[in-house]
Amino acid sequence: MTTRQLHLNAFLMEAGHHEAAWRLPESEAGAGLDVRHYVRLAQIAEAARFDSIFFADGATVQGSGEFRIAGQLEPLTLLTAVAAATERIGLIATASTTYNDPYALARRFATVDHVSGGRAGWNIVTSATHEEAANFSLAERPLQATRYERADEFLQVAQKLWDSWADDAFVGDKERGRWGDPARIRSIDHEGRFFQVAGPLNVPRPPQGYPLLVQAGASEQGKAFAAKHAEAIFVAHQTLEQAQAFYTEIKGRAVAAGRDADHVLVLPGIVPIIGDTEAEATALARHLDDLRVPEYGLRQLAAFLEVDESELDLDAALPDHVVERTHREGFDSRSRLVIDLAQRESLTVRQLLGRLGGGRGHNVVIGTPVQVADVIETWFTQGAADGFNVMGAALPSGLEAFADTVVPILRERGLFRTEYEGTTLRDHYGLPRPANQLDLVGADVV
Amino acid sequence: MTTRQLHLNAFLMEAGHHEAAWRLPESEAGAGLDVRHYVRLAQIAEAARFDSIFFADGATVQGSGEFRIAGQLEPLTLLTAVAAATERIGLIATASTTYNDPYALARRFATVDHVSGGRAGWNIVTSATHEEAANFSLAERPLQATRYERADEFLQVAQKLWDSWADDAFVGDKERGRWGDPARIRSIDHEGRFFQVAGPLNVPRPPQGYPLLVQAGASEQGKAFAAKHAEAIFVAHQTLEQAQAFYTEIKGRAVAAGRDADHVLVLPGIVPIIGDTEAEATALARHLDDLRVPEYGLRQLAAFLEVDESELDLDAALPDHVVERTHREGFDSRSRLVIDLAQRESLTVRQLLGRLGGGRGHNVVIGTPVQVADVIETWFTQGAADGFNVMGAALPSGLEAFADTVVPILRERGLFRTEYEGTTLRDHYGLPRPANQLDLVGADVV
Repeated sequence: MTTRQLHLNAFLMEAGHHEAAWRLPESEAGAGLDVRHYVRLAQIAEAARFDSIFFADGATVQGSGEFRIAGQLEPLTLLTAVAAATERIGLIATASTTYNDPYALARRFATVDHVSGGRAGWNIVTSATHEEAANFSLAERPLQATRYERADEFLQVAQKLWDSWADDAFVGDKERGRWGDPARIRSIDHEGRFFQVAGPLNVPRPPQGYPLLVQAGASEQGKAFAAKHAEAIFVAHQTLEQAQAFYTEIKGRAVAAGRDADHVLVLPGIVPIIGDTEAEATALARHLDDLRVPEYGLRQLAAFLEVDESELDLDAALPDHVVERTHREGFDSRSRLVIDLAQRESLTVRQLLGRLGGGRGHNVVIGTPVQVADVIETWFTQGAADGFNVMGAALPSGLEAFADTVVPILRERGLFRTEYEGTTLRDHYGLPRPANQLDLVGADVV
Repeated sequence: MTTRQLHLNAFLMEAGHHEAAWRLPESEAGAGLDVRHYVRLAQIAEAARFDSIFFADGATVQGSGEFRIAGQLEPLTLLTAVAAATERIGLIATASTTYNDPYALARRFATVDHVSGGRAGWNIVTSATHEEAANFSLAERPLQATRYERADEFLQVAQKLWDSWADDAFVGDKERGRWGDPARIRSIDHEGRFFQVAGPLNVPRPPQGYPLLVQAGASEQGKAFAAKHAEAIFVAHQTLEQAQAFYTEIKGRAVAAGRDADHVLVLPGIVPIIGDTEAEATALARHLDDLRVPEYGLRQLAAFLEVDESELDLDAALPDHVVERTHREGFDSRSRLVIDLAQRESLTVRQLLGRLGGGRGHNVVIGTPVQVADVIETWFTQGAADGFNVMGAALPSGLEAFADTVVPILRERGLFRTEYEGTTLRDHYGLPRPANQLDLVGADVV
């Protein structure tokens, strides 16, 4: 193919991204706890030739109170199960640099990359919530600036560890009894502010060199980190203009950091709600919204904005002091996106919840397959996206509908692959395999 | 079946437990890096109705220097891959309480237990080496006493987290919009010396309640921990008398700790080297020993005993000061086992290496299938073992030989199952499902 190609990631979440999707008659309420559900979703995405699937993560119970407390399986464990049931699709999971150790995590991603034949991707997060800190023996959550400094050093250590074996370090010379070449495996002796790590890693260099590095925070710190390190960026935008501004900014910052703009792929989230007709799509969206429990949404929103529920009135606008509070340091950029949406469209809290319930701030597109494909093509061709993070409102039905009806239109328009051309996740995204940064010839060996 | 039944665990390691197994013509030198190798081994063990498979672990490169540097895949990642390719066999992996956080690890084992339908087991280790400390930002390895105190609290936190969801906490009531029952999910608010953890876990209670708890250290601290917590113990003994003494001691200590002696299963390691005739078995053992590289073994032994290579002479006994050094605090009980073996049999270092190369201190049994079965029956019926940790010298051939020739004899003698009777790992080992220790009625909820 010669024309620029779209990239599609399937963001998998329980019975769907819409908060009420699990209540649909056809849904499995406990889908989030069932590995077979995720295997099935990954197989649907692979059959449609998606670049990758993705599992988000956070080390706390999602939701609280009367209406919903969702358990969640550990995503790297899920990735391996999905790897065994698929052949080509990329496998991306979130893992925190604040609540992991680099040796252990580098090793786990290296293992997933080996087990999957080069299909691992790591969505790097710094874990903003108080609740996570309280699960990891911290009295307070670390400041955002500290978290990103740690993330930077964490990634540096992980890359050194992946590079601690040359690609040809494993020899397997039975005749001479040489399993590995010690001149091609070395310590890293990292001494930093957060970590002191001797190395080498105890896993050979991953097939991809490094797993694909993904990032999803859109705060100022997050963008700085993404411009420097990320190869794919998951981001939430409500409007084309916002998405274009972000796209231009992040590509510019990547180039300023000495990187190739094509090696930083921007994938906005899209929640497609698809019907054969516009009326059908709208009816499906309305049906999902009717299944929402407003009190659950209110509690979620209050927790998200870090205010007490009693400060929010379902039938009034967000109070000014709440809006101002979210501009403090430490707040996720997603909070500001929510505030912006409420202000831009003058929404009451109830209306805001309706807009958020379907996609937590991501772009919900309700329409026919052609209408959904049009939005994708517009964003893709008008400097807003290199592809999309496809978030089925209900799963599997939303992913199936997208694969069956939107993907063929994208193919007709020459925008999306009909077959995989490579075998690794980096191949699918058109990203280079990183060279080993350590000089392993003549280096001190273990 | 009415007679007491043997338990068999297949301890899987790369191309085999013999250090030179990877050099056999039929071996895959890079087997340790190939998930398909482990899937095949697990399927062989499952077809033979083994209770479980087991992956050991350590967060350092194994071996050093010219002759061997073995990479190793991360074992919990491997477990999931094996879970997907098997149906009934138990899945045990080592994980360290010194270099993990309880929230993250409790969650991973809970996930493996969910994904496998109740087949997860956790071999709890405290990680004795300097090298691991140096990979986890510690200037020194923690003292053994500190490590075990941490292990104790770690396990306590993990159990609270697994108990933080009642077994019936997930409701899935679509009609009322109640996903979970908040009165059946609660915080743990653990405040201890090492950990402060709010909880609840973000994974529902594992199918087994807790994963099977396994322990493998035979130091005084290790035995105290095992008597209190372990449900299965992997241990190394060279003689029936040693094994009987350990068995009697550990069962007595478990009873003294208020536990049922039948709920602490003792599984000594056995490295069977099997031939149709004794001469054939001896020839296979000799062939493997001839493939050893003595300099590699010497380096390993020096590292193991924490002495300089230059202090060891291949053709002399272990020097006295080396023997004495290993009695200091912090040394693994395995070191003392090696020293005892050398002294009991008056071995030179070279002879000692020959004895260790095949099984790292475990009992190497060279003989016909009947001879191997006789040793197993003797140990099993004479108060030394509840089953065995079967360590194929070469893999898969050693496991295949055991499954094809020894297992049928054990069945003829009425000692081993022909079919699984339950579905979980606890079922196979005849161990109860732990009750939830938290009172979840009327408790403070999240």
